[in-house]
Amino acid sequence: MKLPILLAMLAVAAAPPPPQVRSPGDAVKSAPATDWVEIPAADLLVMDLAGGKRVVIQLAPQFAPVHIANIRAMARSGYWAKATIYRVVDNWVTQWGLGDGPFPTPPGVVARPPEEYQRGATGLMLMPMGSPDPYSAMAAFADGWPVAMQVGGTVNLTYCYGAVGVARDAAPDTGNSSELFAVIGSTARRLDRNYALVGRVIDGMEDLSALPRGTAEMGVYAKDQVPTPITAVRIAADMPAAGRPRFEYLRTGSPAFADYVQLASHRADYGVPSPGAALCAVPVPVRKVGAQR
Amino acid sequence: MKLPILLAMLAVAAAPPPPQVRSPGDAVKSAPATDWVEIPAADLLVMDLAGGKRVVIQLAPQFAPVHIANIRAMARSGYWAKATIYRVVDNWVTQWGLGDGPFPTPPGVVARPPEEYQRGATGLMLMPMGSPDPYSAMAAFADGWPVAMQVGGTVNLTYCYGAVGVARDAAPDTGNSSELFAVIGSTARRLDRNYALVGRVIDGMEDLSALPRGTAEMGVYAKDQVPTPITAVRIAADMPAAGRPRFEYLRTGSPAFADYVQLASHRADYGVPSPGAALCAVPVPVRKVGAQR
Repeated sequence: MKLPILLAMLAVAAAPPPPQVRSPGDAVKSAPATDWVEIPAADLLVMDLAGGKRVVIQLAPQFAPVHIANIRAMARSGYWAKATIYRVVDNWVTQWGLGDGPFPTPPGVVARPPEEYQRGATGLMLMPMGSPDPYSAMAAFADGWPVAMQVGGTVNLTYCYGAVGVARDAAPDTGNSSELFAVIGSTARRLDRNYALVGRVIDGMEDLSALPRGTAEMGVYAKDQVPTPITAVRIAADMPAAGRPRFEYLRTGSPAFADYVQLASHRADYGVPSPGAALCAVPVPVRKVGAQR
Repeated sequence: MKLPILLAMLAVAAAPPPPQVRSPGDAVKSAPATDWVEIPAADLLVMDLAGGKRVVIQLAPQFAPVHIANIRAMARSGYWAKATIYRVVDNWVTQWGLGDGPFPTPPGVVARPPEEYQRGATGLMLMPMGSPDPYSAMAAFADGWPVAMQVGGTVNLTYCYGAVGVARDAAPDTGNSSELFAVIGSTARRLDRNYALVGRVIDGMEDLSALPRGTAEMGVYAKDQVPTPITAVRIAADMPAAGRPRFEYLRTGSPAFADYVQLASHRADYGVPSPGAALCAVPVPVRKVGAQR
């Protein structure tokens, strides 16, 4: 008997079973606690709906500071006390606010904010996503957000599922964040750099996406449809500490996030791996604080 | 007075107003009637829901012939007489059928169809879409469908919003089209080449996408949720001619369609044009026969 062959046979017999294909969720689960970053309470917009439902939106002050200041001022003043969700368009957006106005805004609200559609890259840590992006020169992540860098070097937030934007009239500077919309569809990135993007829904998304679609013009609710009342809109920092929702996101500069992006971009857990992925198909992982500890 | 200057001033005064930016819809509206192709009645799956709602699905026999033969056989035999919509996952899929079985299928149904996930390009007229596609070597249109060509030359249908796929267990050959799902989210293209794609919803999409999300495991409806009954599933060709739904699509080889793709890929109707677009953001135009004549 030839010993090397026996040894080889033993090696085969003792080999561990083939590793299971890792999913993006596996990368998230194995991230150390130190890779999770809590979202500041000042950046959480908490919107309570009739029926005890709650939608939580993470605001993006590093991209749209004037709009975010407007939103905080309106939330704190009770501006939205009679607001409703009054427009739902399939594969497009759900929109809320007071509707046709104008309504007087509280002191400090800038009536016509500058076009905060894109910004310079200075001060951002960009992590390239690694797949081609039809809407920009480079898809990337920065500060916990999916972003696109354009030819010329400006950076913009991207209208992925759940992104929250500022409704406006045709003229670009006519939105002040009093009327907002969330993307409930698959094709909204043509709004990139055309509508101010102020945040993203991080909890309660299905309470916006599963609403009946509006049947009047432009998907506004018709007279025989009932808009969903919004019972309270608050900034988490203004709520009692004990009752505040708290969320954290996976730091987009962490090794665990890079592992997640790699796995999500070339998913092999169904069988045939994809050569790449759309930026919006790789959402930044977000979870409730304490949920998985 | 210097005449050239006066003439130049007159020219300015007489200049027509700047042309309106054309939208993709404008290209569709101006397509001649001869560019519209009626979908064969044998390729329309008509699914009636409780409450008088109707979902119409265009089948794709040129891509998944065995699965489509199965679907026609099951529709004609009344296999789905007690089917329901029993699973809804936000930003993902809505699924229907009889649920956990097995249930006996009618004669002619192939229990384990071949993997009809992709096909050769021979016999297809491909119209390249012109934007980079993270999921393939080339995004294109063929025979009225959004497709992707992979390195190596195979062509696959793509899991855009409204795409209908075959549910299955983990093993790739375990679906026979008795349980189907429709994409209601933005990130399903990782299913490309992994789940058989048999058609797309062309009418009634909101009756699938606006349903309450399932709260049990995997988004299946929990015991306290009511699945939506499906009251009838028929092939349009089997319905009385007078009552059949009829649809047509814009021929993907037509000049009007090329115009539409160009406008939809570089939309300028909001202000800043996008450098490109995702394949799924340029849906093939479909309308009811007679709707716009």
